[in-house]
Amino acid sequence: MRMYDVIRKKRDGGELSDAEIAFFVDGFTKGEIPDYQASALLMAIFFRGMTERETVTLTDNMAKSGDTVDLSRFGMLSADKHSTGGVGDKTTLIVAPVVASLGGRMAKMSGRGLGHTGGTVDKLESIPGYRTSLSPDEFLGQVEKIGLSVIGQSGNLTPADKKLYALRDVTATVDSIPLITSSIMSKKLAAGSHNIVLDVKVGSGAFMKTPEDAETLAREMVKIGKGCGRNVRAVLSNMDVPLGSAVGNSLEVIEAANILKGADSGDLYEVSVILSAQLVSMVRGVSVEEAERAVREAIRSGAAFAKMKEWVSSQGGDVGYLDDTDLFPAAKYRKDVTAPRGGYIFSTDAEKIGEASVVLGAGRASKEDAIDHAAGILIKKKTGDRVEKGDVICTLLTNDESSLADAEKEVLSAVGIGDEKPDNKPLVFGIIS
Amino acid sequence: MRMYDVIRKKRDGGELSDAEIAFFVDGFTKGEIPDYQASALLMAIFFRGMTERETVTLTDNMAKSGDTVDLSRFGMLSADKHSTGGVGDKTTLIVAPVVASLGGRMAKMSGRGLGHTGGTVDKLESIPGYRTSLSPDEFLGQVEKIGLSVIGQSGNLTPADKKLYALRDVTATVDSIPLITSSIMSKKLAAGSHNIVLDVKVGSGAFMKTPEDAETLAREMVKIGKGCGRNVRAVLSNMDVPLGSAVGNSLEVIEAANILKGADSGDLYEVSVILSAQLVSMVRGVSVEEAERAVREAIRSGAAFAKMKEWVSSQGGDVGYLDDTDLFPAAKYRKDVTAPRGGYIFSTDAEKIGEASVVLGAGRASKEDAIDHAAGILIKKKTGDRVEKGDVICTLLTNDESSLADAEKEVLSAVGIGDEKPDNKPLVFGIIS
Repeated sequence: MRMYDVIRKKRDGGELSDAEIAFFVDGFTKGEIPDYQASALLMAIFFRGMTERETVTLTDNMAKSGDTVDLSRFGMLSADKHSTGGVGDKTTLIVAPVVASLGGRMAKMSGRGLGHTGGTVDKLESIPGYRTSLSPDEFLGQVEKIGLSVIGQSGNLTPADKKLYALRDVTATVDSIPLITSSIMSKKLAAGSHNIVLDVKVGSGAFMKTPEDAETLAREMVKIGKGCGRNVRAVLSNMDVPLGSAVGNSLEVIEAANILKGADSGDLYEVSVILSAQLVSMVRGVSVEEAERAVREAIRSGAAFAKMKEWVSSQGGDVGYLDDTDLFPAAKYRKDVTAPRGGYIFSTDAEKIGEASVVLGAGRASKEDAIDHAAGILIKKKTGDRVEKGDVICTLLTNDESSLADAEKEVLSAVGIGDEKPDNKPLVFGIIS
Repeated sequence: MRMYDVIRKKRDGGELSDAEIAFFVDGFTKGEIPDYQASALLMAIFFRGMTERETVTLTDNMAKSGDTVDLSRFGMLSADKHSTGGVGDKTTLIVAPVVASLGGRMAKMSGRGLGHTGGTVDKLESIPGYRTSLSPDEFLGQVEKIGLSVIGQSGNLTPADKKLYALRDVTATVDSIPLITSSIMSKKLAAGSHNIVLDVKVGSGAFMKTPEDAETLAREMVKIGKGCGRNVRAVLSNMDVPLGSAVGNSLEVIEAANILKGADSGDLYEVSVILSAQLVSMVRGVSVEEAERAVREAIRSGAAFAKMKEWVSSQGGDVGYLDDTDLFPAAKYRKDVTAPRGGYIFSTDAEKIGEASVVLGAGRASKEDAIDHAAGILIKKKTGDRVEKGDVICTLLTNDESSLADAEKEVLSAVGIGDEKPDNKPLVFGIIS
């Protein structure tokens, strides 16, 4: 088999065979197929697309390109959640203990933040003592014992995806539904869970800017995941504005803990309930309505918060910080950003808010950057809210005083104020199963 | 400027600016832009095409990527001929002295053969003493003195094309009209002639299989050549069958000499006249009809043959071989291939005939192979001819006896014999100016 013929076949609109796709993934991962041939194929895929069978085969081959996590001991109870990336998205910190408290088994590997979106591992590391790196035995043992563990990426999972993504990133071949799908789903397959809920973000702060595009991607991911033998559903959720009111690592842990301690209203609570209910419905084989009632009760009763503490404590974290969140070290500098005029907030550009939080030190502009766990933004007014001139829109928190001016400028450019009250956008645009 | 943005713009159907194209050609030639980004752009160009302005700019930048030949001293008299590659195509050996004998200035660099098509430089080297490598001063001095010189490629002409072509060849991005056009025309621009005739081959032995495809390419090349300030015309000529009756190096020199000595009929003579007339018409600013009369007279009178001898002698070649072509060493082994049945020849696959000649030693399967100048094929019957079973279709010549069986098999597979006399295909499908 020659890579030239594989490229040419796809270029001319042909359907690649399983053997051709396996040849490509294997050869590229091993470095036998050069980058320049891979990028030509990726661009041909961008234009020609892939059939469902091709995408399933690509995903499956990528999933098996390196280590895989074996969660078969948990049978149908294993559950995983994936977000396509948002600002202020701390739902994992809520969903994981909720689902574990209701019988799901969440053995979750999470990433670090890069650019305007934060990473769950960074957030958890703001809890003193929390270990994000466990041995495979510790990791799975903890899931067996208490139902959940969240650690950083470990092992050599999906090296094909790592290499392919790096190449797509510099050759303008990221925006392709089959390539996005295979990238995301191969990682989920390798991570081993039987039940998967995908939180597909839509809006200014997300990769998918319109509900239509997000739905196309979500349908494809659900189809491919099922084609690979997993139980997959997707929730299309709004990311025009940051989720909840905190952006920044310890700030988001605090907000998540408060939800589990009973702050049962607002967008973050509702999205977390919806995501949890999908997983619980899959894990327990019950209706979504029944699952949702159980989820709300697990939060109300404190069972989920107890599970969160059990989890954090198992991984060495100081749960005193969860009980009394005032223990988290405060940022040295804080600055209120006020409304330059009166009116209604008609937009809160989530991506810009995310970028402002990076400026303050809450995220990384490049992989090597250190993180300021106390830095971030507390949002006081969001899209749809009425403000008077001088009202506080949000508060900036940082240990680097010099960053405040730039961050304030960025936040002000993110927030639009007008005379008309904008239409409410739904929190969730739809659920694909 | 970032290569990523250039790729993305073309991917999305945008028109690249002159600065973007220059950035790509320059950066790629210098090795600053990696192959994997170049191949992604090439594939995007394959799908999106290029506007006339983009192709002119690409061609111009590629032409200037290395050395260029300055023929300005010859003003409007400089003339060049380019063939897109055929089997038995020895027209340069005829056209160059004809045009020079009528006042044109042909400073021509030619290539060596590779695969099923022969190279003019290989053919000329079958003449004992002929030097295909001259210094720039010798080369241009000879053109000044006698009107023509034909040498091998020298200097670092169009390094951008060399690198790009090598990449296209392994990434399935060869078949793109703007890329083919810029590749061919950049070399012609760098070679410096003001007047250029393109012999675009059509048929089984050519890159372009149909007159329609060939016309599309020819129109584009003429347009782009003119856009770059040159006087360009294209002749669409038949390459369903080899041109003339000889395939192989000394065999083709002999056939060309015979034409100039008065063998004034047949496809080779007619195509050579048509190509010469186009150049003479451009060089002298006269009608094609008037030019064609002058060309036929230059051959009939012996002026063109005298010019051929002057040329070969100037470059050290023994012209005794042109006067008495029996002096060329004969191949040790010869084998007649006979018709397996009676009927009409309805096809003579030029590519397969070319490949059979390579098997016999007349060409190279890879760049390093040596050439047997005496080897080749003498064609006795061509498409449209009536044959009886056992009639000689062609004669194989070689110094490697072991190659005869394979070559015979290849030739027999190239020749189709049926009961119906096939329709005559025209020798020339059209002229684009």
